[in-house]
Amino acid sequence: MNLEAVYHRAKSSWSYAYDDRTLHIRIRTKKNDITAIDLHSGDKYGGEDTNAVAAMVRFASDALFDYWEAAVRPKYRRTVYYFALHDGETSAYVLEKGIFDEPPPYIYEGCFDFPFINAVDVLKPPAWVKDAVFYQIFPERFANGDPSLNPEGTEPWGGTPTPTNYFGGDLKGVMDHLDHLTSLGVNAIYFNPVFEATKNHKYDTSDYLKVDPQFGTNETLKELVQACHEKGIRVLLDAVFNHSGHAFPPFVDVLENGPDSQYADWFHVREWPLTVKDGVATYDTFGYEPIMPKLNTENPEVIAYLLKVAKYWIEEVGIDGWRLDVANEVDHAFWREFRKTVKAVNPEAYLLGEVMHDSLPWLLGDQFDAVMNYPFTNACIDFFARSAISAGQFTSRLSAQLVSYPKQANEVAFNLLGSHDTFRLLTQCNGNKERFKLTSLFQLTFSGVPCIYYGDEIGIDGGYDPGNRKCMEWDPKKQDRELLAFFQRLIALRHKYAALRTGSVTFLQDQESDTSLIYERRDEQDHFIILINNSDTAATLRTTVSRDSWTGVLSEAPVVTPQGQLKLQLPPFGYAILHAQVNGDN
Amino acid sequence: MNLEAVYHRAKSSWSYAYDDRTLHIRIRTKKNDITAIDLHSGDKYGGEDTNAVAAMVRFASDALFDYWEAAVRPKYRRTVYYFALHDGETSAYVLEKGIFDEPPPYIYEGCFDFPFINAVDVLKPPAWVKDAVFYQIFPERFANGDPSLNPEGTEPWGGTPTPTNYFGGDLKGVMDHLDHLTSLGVNAIYFNPVFEATKNHKYDTSDYLKVDPQFGTNETLKELVQACHEKGIRVLLDAVFNHSGHAFPPFVDVLENGPDSQYADWFHVREWPLTVKDGVATYDTFGYEPIMPKLNTENPEVIAYLLKVAKYWIEEVGIDGWRLDVANEVDHAFWREFRKTVKAVNPEAYLLGEVMHDSLPWLLGDQFDAVMNYPFTNACIDFFARSAISAGQFTSRLSAQLVSYPKQANEVAFNLLGSHDTFRLLTQCNGNKERFKLTSLFQLTFSGVPCIYYGDEIGIDGGYDPGNRKCMEWDPKKQDRELLAFFQRLIALRHKYAALRTGSVTFLQDQESDTSLIYERRDEQDHFIILINNSDTAATLRTTVSRDSWTGVLSEAPVVTPQGQLKLQLPPFGYAILHAQVNGDN
Repeated sequence: MNLEAVYHRAKSSWSYAYDDRTLHIRIRTKKNDITAIDLHSGDKYGGEDTNAVAAMVRFASDALFDYWEAAVRPKYRRTVYYFALHDGETSAYVLEKGIFDEPPPYIYEGCFDFPFINAVDVLKPPAWVKDAVFYQIFPERFANGDPSLNPEGTEPWGGTPTPTNYFGGDLKGVMDHLDHLTSLGVNAIYFNPVFEATKNHKYDTSDYLKVDPQFGTNETLKELVQACHEKGIRVLLDAVFNHSGHAFPPFVDVLENGPDSQYADWFHVREWPLTVKDGVATYDTFGYEPIMPKLNTENPEVIAYLLKVAKYWIEEVGIDGWRLDVANEVDHAFWREFRKTVKAVNPEAYLLGEVMHDSLPWLLGDQFDAVMNYPFTNACIDFFARSAISAGQFTSRLSAQLVSYPKQANEVAFNLLGSHDTFRLLTQCNGNKERFKLTSLFQLTFSGVPCIYYGDEIGIDGGYDPGNRKCMEWDPKKQDRELLAFFQRLIALRHKYAALRTGSVTFLQDQESDTSLIYERRDEQDHFIILINNSDTAATLRTTVSRDSWTGVLSEAPVVTPQGQLKLQLPPFGYAILHAQVNGDN
Repeated sequence: MNLEAVYHRAKSSWSYAYDDRTLHIRIRTKKNDITAIDLHSGDKYGGEDTNAVAAMVRFASDALFDYWEAAVRPKYRRTVYYFALHDGETSAYVLEKGIFDEPPPYIYEGCFDFPFINAVDVLKPPAWVKDAVFYQIFPERFANGDPSLNPEGTEPWGGTPTPTNYFGGDLKGVMDHLDHLTSLGVNAIYFNPVFEATKNHKYDTSDYLKVDPQFGTNETLKELVQACHEKGIRVLLDAVFNHSGHAFPPFVDVLENGPDSQYADWFHVREWPLTVKDGVATYDTFGYEPIMPKLNTENPEVIAYLLKVAKYWIEEVGIDGWRLDVANEVDHAFWREFRKTVKAVNPEAYLLGEVMHDSLPWLLGDQFDAVMNYPFTNACIDFFARSAISAGQFTSRLSAQLVSYPKQANEVAFNLLGSHDTFRLLTQCNGNKERFKLTSLFQLTFSGVPCIYYGDEIGIDGGYDPGNRKCMEWDPKKQDRELLAFFQRLIALRHKYAALRTGSVTFLQDQESDTSLIYERRDEQDHFIILINNSDTAATLRTTVSRDSWTGVLSEAPVVTPQGQLKLQLPPFGYAILHAQVNGDN
């Protein structure tokens, strides 16, 4: 038994409350080292009737480790516990105070502790998010619905984007095209910033309480949100609270009045005067960008101002949540106040942080509901778009991701495949539409909340900014309608079956292949097996399945059922989605 | 290289801000597997001048692992980083996205991230705590200074304690004996509860805003705190906020009015009416104790009430902090508000949680400054008092403890050797005074804040409640004056040398011995080597030291200096404390 590989730590992603009554407890062991683990639990204050033993399930594996999980519902919302590891020959007992050859004499002797499930501490993302399919809109480039708002020098729709030019996209344009979204099956929009700012991306806010006149008015936004709600579409706005823009009046005041400005403490000034020396501002900024001064979110005035902003757009306009820009560089204390403020006015608001790294510190119930899932993005691109990693490496990376967070955070992870900050997916795929489709198919049949970057669904390509910010194509003849239909079918399938949204995920890897991916999604109603041949040659995929009768959906794949041994021939970049009802024939 | 043993996770005890500019970064490897580790860091937004390499120091080891640490001060308070592990033959590069044979092409490619050091998130315990020597007083049993307050049936001082009897201890009694504390060298008191309650231990509070009449009045407490402050003694009170007592008026109201009570939601009622069925209350309690109903600390009225209490005793009486009873069963959200409230009225208040298990979730800057260090207690008792573990197991357990928390939390860890909840130390030692002295010597020369349970210093013994709550002995002829002098000398030594309070800790284990403990404490001024023979036979202790000239302090040990090879003969249960000035002779 490899004891060095064993890892558990209480009150983290390794043990957390899934709801007000249920704990999920996980442990890590060396890959293929352990055959069974029993989780022993009980009340630390005694009471024999509280003692329980649960067989843990190996729910994920990566290159080095197996991960095991069990759910327990302690009678009095408190439990101590230890793990009994078995490898077929010997057993080891993993307690907080060490690893032993013998079990502890009492359940409360040196064990791990989950002291009490307090409801207020439990991470509870809004229920609607699990069922959402998001669509990201970069407002300047989606549709020009009101040419009277065009900024000076606006270029004809569909021209070549540059970092600084304008095409007149606005909120009226979005309103005009909501039918495109509903016909696609989208039921939530994430908007890049819409507040007044000087750049076309609007990440340099000058007025957090005003829609940029280029996009419309606050009233237009209110009408748009109302129109969205009438069509069953939720709306998420972008909160750029890490930094303001250079035209933000408090910053202008500091520029003008220096340390005497009443706003001097709204920013992080390292050295007066405010200037740029050798390419670096004398004040903290986003990255090294002088026009984006970092806000001092520890200053009570700044906190009050930003919380007012957070409330205003929910109360006045009715938005359904916030996407939080550069969220990991803002202090945790601010986000805790932010969460309390927002949830007080809309308990169903979705709080989505932009965090590109391990995000557990923000997903413990007191800050965000979810994060932009860039590790998912990168793994998908490395496997599907670039064939840079094997299927085993791909599932390892996704598994490591799944075990890093509480399950309820995974269920609402924001799974994007591209954005205004990355290459577009089609370009990542080097224009290969088959790879593009496999990536999207995976996204739309996997755990987490999928988000489609505007135009991906009709075949728009593009590299980094400005290439990824082309105008949306509204001429049906120039849209890839076959691709659009593919998205429509897949999204409809996802909406039809909860198993594809919130069902369990198990990778059924074909060990002989670097390019074949097989996984299942299931809940109490439905069971899906999804097979993907991520290669330019035909392949035969094999796996063992638990039932004999399957229906192929959305594909030409035959229904295959020989005695639980699934064997399927797939063409280059082919796929099959097999479905069965959990109880009864289908 | 054993890759399964490698562990790091950003923004936890493995990487944290030690102060507003400095990050501590740690990693775990298999014991004796790695010879050197380089920590590579840099700004994720670029800037070659931000790139740095630091050699990590192996700062602790336990039975299975080595633990390494380095400090970095990122130029712009943000850094990404990876680890280069070397075993003399090969190297491995540990990144967030995996372990690789080659270093990453860029510092921002797949590395770990500490996104920004925000000052408000940094754990900053009050500076005074590092220099404190605490003394715990159980008020009913310390001294009877005002017999007019004696409860009915008070027994003569020094009688046999029972779970329910009274001896008339009170606050005036404490005031009368402050000289005992100052002559001992104590500069902080932790009081068990003093608020009105029905039991002699006062953990069943009936009025959180009133001193129990048996102990005095609010005014008496104010005078006592003032008298303590005049003598340089800080005062910590016990906040029993997890549960109230059965005579707490809101609970009485619920008992009387059931679900119609305006206080019905102040508690966690599982089933009406309030009663006890088969030994278990129909409402949540502390343990299974019906007279201690758990407070609903998610109820805004309860929160407001308890925060008022927290402020009141600081503002009106001037206490220096709170010890938080059963702290881990109260929600984190409450403690965050509690910290903000208390620190707003006294930024130097010490917040000490009673948490018996891994306490990292409370020590991340938003909740407590420190916890009652029971793992320290238990390790000391197992090694010194009971000889149940070897010196190697002892240092393993302490090392595992040190690596579990940020350094600033370790510096103010509340190191007790016994309390009103445990056997007294002398009884743990089965009356063996030599073992008792070695345990105390270790406590008073180790990292963390020592606390002496009243009377331990003069030789009082006792088992569990009520044995551990005997009356303090004030007759000098019945006090162990030799023991008292031993404590006085050791505490004076601790006060004299900062190295013994906040210096680094290194175990210099004699691998051949199960009973010999050698460790050093050092800072920029002073260097101590402490040698302990924890056995009933004489022993020769050997270790390599970095200098040749040492002075023995507090012991008969000779000054021994042969060429860095320290060899010292110690009698049964003997010890030596060797001192050197870091720069120059001594």
